[in-house]
Amino acid sequence: MTLRVYVDRISHPCREVIIFCRLNGIDFEEVRIDLSKRQHLTPEFKGINPLMQIPAIMDGRFKLSESHAILRYLACAFPGIADHWYPADLYQRAKVESVLDWHRANFPRGPAGYVSKSVLAPAIGLPLNPQAAAKAEKILIASLAKIESVWLQKKGRFLLGSDQPSIADLSLACEIMQLEVVDEKDRERILGPFKRVQKWLNDTKNAMAPHFEEVHSILAEVKEKLQKQRNAIGSRITEVGRKPDLHSKM
Amino acid sequence: MTLRVYVDRISHPCREVIIFCRLNGIDFEEVRIDLSKRQHLTPEFKGINPLMQIPAIMDGRFKLSESHAILRYLACAFPGIADHWYPADLYQRAKVESVLDWHRANFPRGPAGYVSKSVLAPAIGLPLNPQAAAKAEKILIASLAKIESVWLQKKGRFLLGSDQPSIADLSLACEIMQLEVVDEKDRERILGPFKRVQKWLNDTKNAMAPHFEEVHSILAEVKEKLQKQRNAIGSRITEVGRKPDLHSKM
Repeated sequence: MTLRVYVDRISHPCREVIIFCRLNGIDFEEVRIDLSKRQHLTPEFKGINPLMQIPAIMDGRFKLSESHAILRYLACAFPGIADHWYPADLYQRAKVESVLDWHRANFPRGPAGYVSKSVLAPAIGLPLNPQAAAKAEKILIASLAKIESVWLQKKGRFLLGSDQPSIADLSLACEIMQLEVVDEKDRERILGPFKRVQKWLNDTKNAMAPHFEEVHSILAEVKEKLQKQRNAIGSRITEVGRKPDLHSKM
Repeated sequence: MTLRVYVDRISHPCREVIIFCRLNGIDFEEVRIDLSKRQHLTPEFKGINPLMQIPAIMDGRFKLSESHAILRYLACAFPGIADHWYPADLYQRAKVESVLDWHRANFPRGPAGYVSKSVLAPAIGLPLNPQAAAKAEKILIASLAKIESVWLQKKGRFLLGSDQPSIADLSLACEIMQLEVVDEKDRERILGPFKRVQKWLNDTKNAMAPHFEEVHSILAEVKEKLQKQRNAIGSRITEVGRKPDLHSKM
């Protein structure tokens, strides 16, 4: 029975799982769980994942959630996955685990993150909160600084000084790619100072071509949609707030 | 060379590592890194863990951080660790991984957590923020509800319906034990509705006796200290704010 992968490409942990399967030739069926239609909250999906979150997988009768747990499982369960993704060596694997855990602890999930607070909030009907966005930006920059100075301090193109990417590279790169949907000037202000992070992100894209870029193509669509929404909100505000036309016949 | 474990028992991820070593007869040296003296920020400690966080370990020349990564490593690196802690079986291990990852994603680390916002803030000179504490409480209760309804839904005394605890039980129980330092009425209000969580916490304490209770004994000291600080702050506020004594000779 084909592996079923329950995802919405708008979610970055979902993208991790799709890219991993594609890169490793794992045969899978992509089952869309549309977050905007709240399909993750339906009784049907609760049967797949009682936590009502995506990504989730069903491999035969075996159900699993949490993207990092899924990546570990896929790396071990399917034959022929190259060792660099999740090394069998005790010490190398432990180091990959420490990046995965650090990642999960330092990048707040969902609405607490910078991208949500800075651009996604209005798109889902929530007010922008510049103070919260500034705080989230500070946390994000501190985490980028740790990637730059700790995880990328050694030689080698990838995290921990490796010459080949692991699931920790894939997952963390998908996290940082979220910044693609914010304004170019904000992205440049945040990522600009971190030269090693930028180089690593490019190396990761190249090493995972063409799947990495292809699965991330949704971000360009999201960015365009958000821009249109902001323009629409902006023009409504201008409409409401504009001064009476001096030449009006009213 | 003896395993070195760099910890401060005030930190719950540190307690996880100490308890695991004790329970499994791992010979180790407990090296105190005093958080109140900011010893984790010293250049000496940066040599052990460039992330400047505890817990960290040094096993010979091998250095590792992040409590979940450390627990996985210890379970694999030392001989004779019972399989239930971190099962070798692909499917059982994957399920344990999903709890560990869910835990890390759903319990904010450090100052974002409920205990920090509700009682620890004044102890480290930060103002109390009731609005932030209420928000953190809501997140905590939602997570407890998931433990109750998802991770403890199956028969068996431990998470995922197991008869023996895993590292996920140990870690999550240490997280929830943080509630020991808040006022009894607040603890009861939060934990009271979750009967399965309470029973599981007791079963975990019993299964990990006497080390679990012994390593957690620091929480009673912290609670007493916090209470004294609150009383001192309270009496200073009363002192400053009290009305002039009607019988004063001033």
